[in-house]
Amino acid sequence: MKKVTIGIDIGGTGTKFGLVDMEGNVLFHDKIETGLYREFDEYMDALSSKIKSSMEEKMVEYDLIGIGVGAPNGNYFTGTVSYAPNLPWKGVLPIADTLTEKFGVPTVVSNDANAAAVGEQVFGGAKGMKDFIMVTLGTGLGSGFVSNGQLIIGDDALAGEMGHISVKYGRGRSCKCGKKGCLETYVSATGINRTIFKLLVDSHEDSEFRGVSFNELTTKEISAAADRGDPIAIEAFKYTGKILGVKLADMVTIFNPEAIFLFGGLSLAGDHIFLPTKKYMEKNLMKIYKDKVKILPSELGSQGAPIIGAASLVWDKVKS
Amino acid sequence: MKKVTIGIDIGGTGTKFGLVDMEGNVLFHDKIETGLYREFDEYMDALSSKIKSSMEEKMVEYDLIGIGVGAPNGNYFTGTVSYAPNLPWKGVLPIADTLTEKFGVPTVVSNDANAAAVGEQVFGGAKGMKDFIMVTLGTGLGSGFVSNGQLIIGDDALAGEMGHISVKYGRGRSCKCGKKGCLETYVSATGINRTIFKLLVDSHEDSEFRGVSFNELTTKEISAAADRGDPIAIEAFKYTGKILGVKLADMVTIFNPEAIFLFGGLSLAGDHIFLPTKKYMEKNLMKIYKDKVKILPSELGSQGAPIIGAASLVWDKVKS
Repeated sequence: MKKVTIGIDIGGTGTKFGLVDMEGNVLFHDKIETGLYREFDEYMDALSSKIKSSMEEKMVEYDLIGIGVGAPNGNYFTGTVSYAPNLPWKGVLPIADTLTEKFGVPTVVSNDANAAAVGEQVFGGAKGMKDFIMVTLGTGLGSGFVSNGQLIIGDDALAGEMGHISVKYGRGRSCKCGKKGCLETYVSATGINRTIFKLLVDSHEDSEFRGVSFNELTTKEISAAADRGDPIAIEAFKYTGKILGVKLADMVTIFNPEAIFLFGGLSLAGDHIFLPTKKYMEKNLMKIYKDKVKILPSELGSQGAPIIGAASLVWDKVKS
Repeated sequence: MKKVTIGIDIGGTGTKFGLVDMEGNVLFHDKIETGLYREFDEYMDALSSKIKSSMEEKMVEYDLIGIGVGAPNGNYFTGTVSYAPNLPWKGVLPIADTLTEKFGVPTVVSNDANAAAVGEQVFGGAKGMKDFIMVTLGTGLGSGFVSNGQLIIGDDALAGEMGHISVKYGRGRSCKCGKKGCLETYVSATGINRTIFKLLVDSHEDSEFRGVSFNELTTKEISAAADRGDPIAIEAFKYTGKILGVKLADMVTIFNPEAIFLFGGLSLAGDHIFLPTKKYMEKNLMKIYKDKVKILPSELGSQGAPIIGAASLVWDKVKS
């Protein structure tokens, strides 16, 4: 029987899940709405039933060896999710214990960006690499660091929050975390939106975004506008890439990685974001690091990536 | 027979060496002058002869199991030192191969700050810790990062150069590395000297340092002046600690360590440096990290530390 794992990606809006084989193929996927369940137990019951029913026929053919869960604030050591601001249930949620009880297989939990890093290592562009950095650019900025083949987890499984290192200490843009000037307030989907509006304020140049509201603005539209030569869109990518590049140089100085992978919406803008990021990273590196570190797009497809990333947490454990 | 290792600390001025036992005791130590030898081979011959002659009688009692070398630009993977700006010989120096040939035991090479980190883990205050950061404050700022029990080495063994992350990107103080605004231009013995002189320029307050030249100024004197209430000295420590604290917060956000150890001259100033560093680190941390990370003085005595650190590279390898 073919060995498979279940990958589960818990988000504030939806919970996606899928069956993933040893090669990283998603054999089947589906989802439920996270926000529908007032109690955590209800949610776990509904999720398990849905997984079981949707996979019932298929599971006859497969040997389920484990479950991997990527979730905001997911804790690798305890298998719990604690006080995740985006989820409807407060306190410490025993995700791993609950799923292991319901399915009778080991469950591994991690935060979404760390899951993505392991996914890249097990199934993506970081195969065979021992030292790399994964940067996920979504609503916020997540990151996962792999050094000497191991994911950096930290003493309380809270490592890798690169989105909250300081671009400006004690000043700059307000962050949801309560601090000011965090990297993700500049480098993320929300960050580049804020930059577009800053540029509309500071400059008098015309731009197609003078007719668009903050809430309507999407990274995809900014990228399309840059393609059409919109000066504000082009400048916004430069500004974003410069800040990201300078901070990646600091990370290279600490980790000396082989490559840095960019994943998520902003990374789909291609050269608009990769070129300034690379340029300013190189400018801010000591000679010994120059022209060595590749900045690459993630090879995990954006659709299945969170599921594959979560599933890879188990494959990684099984293989080691 | 008691097992021992030789720890060798190669510096631009002197090369220190000593016999170190499994408990981290330095049984014997001596040194030679690094600068006396025009050729690398001559230096290696002289160093080996000196070690052999000074230990000849003693070696009968001991079983030599390996040699550890801490050196600027020391490469853990290749056992070489490459293009170290402080050493008199250029190119790639085959330290490990040469010593292994002469002594018939394995030799491990690393840069000095990484050796200090392993020393702290094997023999010092980080015993039993899996996640910690070592910061060595000398003429420059060195660092070593241990995560999940492993030293972060990097793809080319160049990880851990925290002294060269940017406080100010592309501006600020010139660094010997060719960049501007590097952390060690603010936080190091040289850095605090620069700060004293900046404060003498910016402020009109009286200070005992108005009669001292840049070259005469020492960290010890600045610390003694702060004890006596000198306003410029007190302000210089605050300025230094603030910059260090803010940057350590960024490192905590990435590594989630249990503790951070400070080693070297500046760390001997006690509360003058520890209090502002701790204060500004905490101020710049997200809630999930607050009041968790200890900032501690290194427990490696300043005299034997580089030798112990270097020797611990071998003990660490033997134990694993």
